[in-house]
Amino acid sequence: MARVYNFSAGPAVLPEPVLAQVRDELLDWHGSGMSVMEMSHRGKEFIDIQHQAETDLRALLGVPSNYKVLFLQGGASLQFSMVPLNLLPVGGHADYVLTGSWAKKAAAEAKRYGTVNVAASSADTNFNRIPTQAELRLDPAAAYVHITGNNTIFGTEYHYTPDTGAVPLVNDASSNILSRPLDVSRFGLIYAGAQKNVGPAGLTLVIVRDDLIGRCREGAPTLLDYAIHAENDSAYNTPPTFAIYVAGLVFKHLLKLGGLPAVEKANIDKAELLYGLLDRSAFYNCPTEPASRSRMNVPFTLTNAELDATFLAEAKKAGLVQLKGHRSVGGMRASIYNAMPLAGVQALVDFMTDFERRYG
Amino acid sequence: MARVYNFSAGPAVLPEPVLAQVRDELLDWHGSGMSVMEMSHRGKEFIDIQHQAETDLRALLGVPSNYKVLFLQGGASLQFSMVPLNLLPVGGHADYVLTGSWAKKAAAEAKRYGTVNVAASSADTNFNRIPTQAELRLDPAAAYVHITGNNTIFGTEYHYTPDTGAVPLVNDASSNILSRPLDVSRFGLIYAGAQKNVGPAGLTLVIVRDDLIGRCREGAPTLLDYAIHAENDSAYNTPPTFAIYVAGLVFKHLLKLGGLPAVEKANIDKAELLYGLLDRSAFYNCPTEPASRSRMNVPFTLTNAELDATFLAEAKKAGLVQLKGHRSVGGMRASIYNAMPLAGVQALVDFMTDFERRYG
Repeated sequence: MARVYNFSAGPAVLPEPVLAQVRDELLDWHGSGMSVMEMSHRGKEFIDIQHQAETDLRALLGVPSNYKVLFLQGGASLQFSMVPLNLLPVGGHADYVLTGSWAKKAAAEAKRYGTVNVAASSADTNFNRIPTQAELRLDPAAAYVHITGNNTIFGTEYHYTPDTGAVPLVNDASSNILSRPLDVSRFGLIYAGAQKNVGPAGLTLVIVRDDLIGRCREGAPTLLDYAIHAENDSAYNTPPTFAIYVAGLVFKHLLKLGGLPAVEKANIDKAELLYGLLDRSAFYNCPTEPASRSRMNVPFTLTNAELDATFLAEAKKAGLVQLKGHRSVGGMRASIYNAMPLAGVQALVDFMTDFERRYG
Repeated sequence: MARVYNFSAGPAVLPEPVLAQVRDELLDWHGSGMSVMEMSHRGKEFIDIQHQAETDLRALLGVPSNYKVLFLQGGASLQFSMVPLNLLPVGGHADYVLTGSWAKKAAAEAKRYGTVNVAASSADTNFNRIPTQAELRLDPAAAYVHITGNNTIFGTEYHYTPDTGAVPLVNDASSNILSRPLDVSRFGLIYAGAQKNVGPAGLTLVIVRDDLIGRCREGAPTLLDYAIHAENDSAYNTPPTFAIYVAGLVFKHLLKLGGLPAVEKANIDKAELLYGLLDRSAFYNCPTEPASRSRMNVPFTLTNAELDATFLAEAKKAGLVQLKGHRSVGGMRASIYNAMPLAGVQALVDFMTDFERRYG
């Protein structure tokens, strides 16, 4: 079968040139006579690979020199624990903005370690929007403010960076990191599971300001202390070497495309194409408020839900896969991350237009 | 360059047929039109891959039905925390057998959560041997007994399974799992970082008896609770999907070779070939006691340490790489895991014989 258009929410489509390079180098990386999978993480070859990946990530995001870049494991879910264990003092409190399932999970985990204030929530409208700056009830004494930059399930995304004053802003950027420029200096800590825009599952990126490192609470598991990883260049224990290598190739690929301004432009074009159809049509509906819509995850429903199964089956036949929506929203979801080409979104829109013509 | 013989202690050499299959399937797994890296962990394709990997691992090790197999992240180092957080009650104590650097690290981490008794140690002879059953000062009231089945740095290995009575035996099998048959029923819990005999770094195997699940201490990070992973088939959060896929191919490969009895025989042949040379020669020395020698990691020194750099440089020219020893032991170390062919060990022995002839 030819390559399909894969709209999975994650793990998700990766750039085809990156996959082709991984394939070509699989048994012999750059004449080393071995696969990257087989390299010691303490050997010169792999240290160079990791260093280049960090350099390219810093270039892409313009990471200031007073921030560390860490390559960790455990996904965003382990960050739900590490953030409070490192940033929330015993007896302290933190502000969480609830914009979906992952934000709620992050807040629930933080409650194990201190007081969580809900600074704002869009639960009353089934998380179909992002609270505005004016709605945020921020506590200047909070240890940090936690947001979920993009909500994979509900299809919403921050199109502004909250002003939290002197309180560190923590951003779960798992599903929109590298999809647009980001002023890292506005954040205390950014974390992201790799499996959407970065690379294979099993790698977690953490970008953290120096002054927030070294505050881990006593008795926390050693591996959950950011300082341990920062002091050891993410090699206190064996890092997920192959995933770091693939991520590095993705970073290089994005730089070649023109960096994040070019990536953002492409993502805007793709999103406008799909949302345009949803807004024009009475056959399809989009549950999210226009000002909060994600460029990465586009949930939509068919007005006649009895057609859902037919839609999915016919889409699959047309090479458009992984479109079933999350059970919290129902219907469909098209995840159109960086690596989804405009041609893939066009193919989806063409299919949807034709489907509406035939069944509408 | 052709493929080299890679004696890295980990990440380490993988079976070439497995790497070739990974390469061939990289952009399109079994006609799915996507890479395994791009598959949703909740989709049928990947669930089948993980299920097959578990089935094959169970077949290889004869895992009894009252044991769960978990595919986790964080390496053995995170298990150093998870084992006491799950098995050591507040105020409890555990027995640790100290046979090297990793055993000491495991014990140090456990001390954060309770009392650690040193049941035996070979520190006084720089960890060149494994304590015998008679030397183990075991406490029948201990929550568990922890051993390090193979010691990567010091090159020793248990050739017996300690009898711990009713006390659960916990085994860090990171560097010798799948190198020999193991009676899983003798253990309460076995864990292993994947990057020696299993697959890419970033995957950790845990095999745990049912009755030891569900005891995690309150307030522990959610992801550090074995029960969470057991209840969710290791997919509470996104697992390291690609590493699981590669590990599954390794399991299938080992089954095709005849399973662990055949693998063990090959490993004995390789180890005897190399230790035979070390014992015959006065030019080379092996620091480990014969009865405790590891079949996986063979440390050795040159009587004239001034030749070390020459040895390593000439070995590399001959396509024999990653032979530098760990700083704790000095000299050289040849890691000869499952995927190192006999021809690789023969090439090393031939090189060493020739080197001795020329410099001895």
